[in-house]
Amino acid sequence: MNAMVYHGPGQKAWESVDTPKVLHPTDAIIRVTKTTICGTDLHILKGDVPAVTDGRILGHEGVGIVEAVGDAVSNFKPGDRVLISCITSCGKCEYCKKQMYSHCEDGGWILGHLINGTQAEYVRIPHADNSLYPIPAGSDEEALVMLSDILPTGFEIGVLYGAVKPGDTVAIVGAGPVGMASLLTAQFYSPARLIMVDVDDARLDMAMKFGATEVINSTKTDVAAHIKATTKDGVDVAIEAVGIPQTFDVCQNIIRPGGHLANVGVHGTSVDLQIQKLWIQNVTITTGLVNTNTTPMLLKNVTSGRLQPEGLITHRFTFNDFPKAYEVFGNAAKEKAMKVIISND
Amino acid sequence: MNAMVYHGPGQKAWESVDTPKVLHPTDAIIRVTKTTICGTDLHILKGDVPAVTDGRILGHEGVGIVEAVGDAVSNFKPGDRVLISCITSCGKCEYCKKQMYSHCEDGGWILGHLINGTQAEYVRIPHADNSLYPIPAGSDEEALVMLSDILPTGFEIGVLYGAVKPGDTVAIVGAGPVGMASLLTAQFYSPARLIMVDVDDARLDMAMKFGATEVINSTKTDVAAHIKATTKDGVDVAIEAVGIPQTFDVCQNIIRPGGHLANVGVHGTSVDLQIQKLWIQNVTITTGLVNTNTTPMLLKNVTSGRLQPEGLITHRFTFNDFPKAYEVFGNAAKEKAMKVIISND
Repeated sequence: MNAMVYHGPGQKAWESVDTPKVLHPTDAIIRVTKTTICGTDLHILKGDVPAVTDGRILGHEGVGIVEAVGDAVSNFKPGDRVLISCITSCGKCEYCKKQMYSHCEDGGWILGHLINGTQAEYVRIPHADNSLYPIPAGSDEEALVMLSDILPTGFEIGVLYGAVKPGDTVAIVGAGPVGMASLLTAQFYSPARLIMVDVDDARLDMAMKFGATEVINSTKTDVAAHIKATTKDGVDVAIEAVGIPQTFDVCQNIIRPGGHLANVGVHGTSVDLQIQKLWIQNVTITTGLVNTNTTPMLLKNVTSGRLQPEGLITHRFTFNDFPKAYEVFGNAAKEKAMKVIISND
Repeated sequence: MNAMVYHGPGQKAWESVDTPKVLHPTDAIIRVTKTTICGTDLHILKGDVPAVTDGRILGHEGVGIVEAVGDAVSNFKPGDRVLISCITSCGKCEYCKKQMYSHCEDGGWILGHLINGTQAEYVRIPHADNSLYPIPAGSDEEALVMLSDILPTGFEIGVLYGAVKPGDTVAIVGAGPVGMASLLTAQFYSPARLIMVDVDDARLDMAMKFGATEVINSTKTDVAAHIKATTKDGVDVAIEAVGIPQTFDVCQNIIRPGGHLANVGVHGTSVDLQIQKLWIQNVTITTGLVNTNTTPMLLKNVTSGRLQPEGLITHRFTFNDFPKAYEVFGNAAKEKAMKVIISND
């Protein structure tokens, strides 16, 4: 089969590799029909995730059709259409029993990281009963690809950890795919103000279409000064969806006493926490990798039409054009790309 | 009357000043019968709290007898014995209505900070109905002085914000009065292990008497290595009760995935948050000034004997010896001092 294979920092190739086989009774083999590229894949290609080694097939998102299952798999059978979760969970370790699937002792984020991923014609999914979801008949499968990672990440780590409540003023710093997922799902809780912050006007325009009540281009406006001028004493919730010190700093400067700073961004360096100011402010700072325990709930909201993440998809490719998809996604600002879909239907 | 007056960094005097009067209908004047000195008072004397200006009477803890009340005070009358809360709350602002009395818009921590405090023969307490508590007959009033600040601080900002649960492994870094208050009140929730960390063996011995299951002297043992060796993957809750970068760092290095870091310490400088490691660990970091919304509950536990904070009192003085009390408390390690009581009965 063909797959997108990592060959060390800056190196990848769409090339022929062995087709995966069932290795354990709890495995399923999925024929991938649609996948996408995550900002994390770009981090890996920059060499930021050294656990990913030469020869690894990239990707942790997608939908497909069950090709084969191990003897212990009971929820799925060949021919079933399935959503692949970015998080693999055994369902029986201490962390799984707390719904912290992100830290499953025999799973977590392993696809396209510690084992081969979804940017391939076929992928082996361990612990298939807990790591796949059945796709309801008639679903928009492109929309469901947004459920592998970005929607639950933006919702769980941004909105739920940030404790968004009705009437809140919420600032989301970073209008990339995960920030947009926080924007879409924050609306479940009816905040009064949903302020999107980014450096890219095209992304901010998209944020307005997705329900932001206002936007701030941080290259043109001092975010902290604007928040200070337009709120009593800061925002209730700041969601950090970039992963660099500058954006973390914006967030810690704009939260009000009692506020929440929900860090969603993947950071490569430490940040200077202004605890000499924050110790007295009764703030809560959270971090996290997605657990995907809300995936079934989000799936219902996508199939009902309440959530419409398909609007995040800006570009479409076939598997033959996989390298081109990386090129476009890697130049997201210039290409006005948000999420790309690569199909092999 | 006599009072302990701040005169700029390093300068204080027990001296004669005007006796306070009722200024607002919601005020009460209290004759202070017992007060104490807080680590925060020492911070003020170092010049760390510039909002405290020359001429301010220090102190935010104590018990006493109501001397006079304004026309709007209905819960108290002259002669009532009362506990003075370190937090003044108007009861009617947005923050008070959320029980965030710490950020009351006409109160918060103002005693011995923005208005004259309790280290005096008399003190004016604004918003008396919300900022005083009646003392049950027959109470140990020395024990109740521990309820003005340290017990609710250790409980609310350490134990509750840290979300201590039955079975948890809890590390408290800093065995000063507030760390001890966290130690005492964490036991409400039956953690499996209560590990006290400090640099002073005398304080660690006291911690063992107060319910620590084990102690670590961080000058002799590498805390992170010890925690790593004796837990599966870190502590559930780390309570920072010192307020310096080194102790914050210990805490961020020992929390497990899904763990809580409850910062109680008063910090003077920023800290280097290791978010490049923590972003994926699903941790929660909290900060805060005490709200004192749990004071009535804690009072019941002290009067019932369930909580016995009087053991924290190591030294007793009369008002005539106020300067000596500061000397002893300011040399706590040498004097083996934890909390001092200064009485004017």
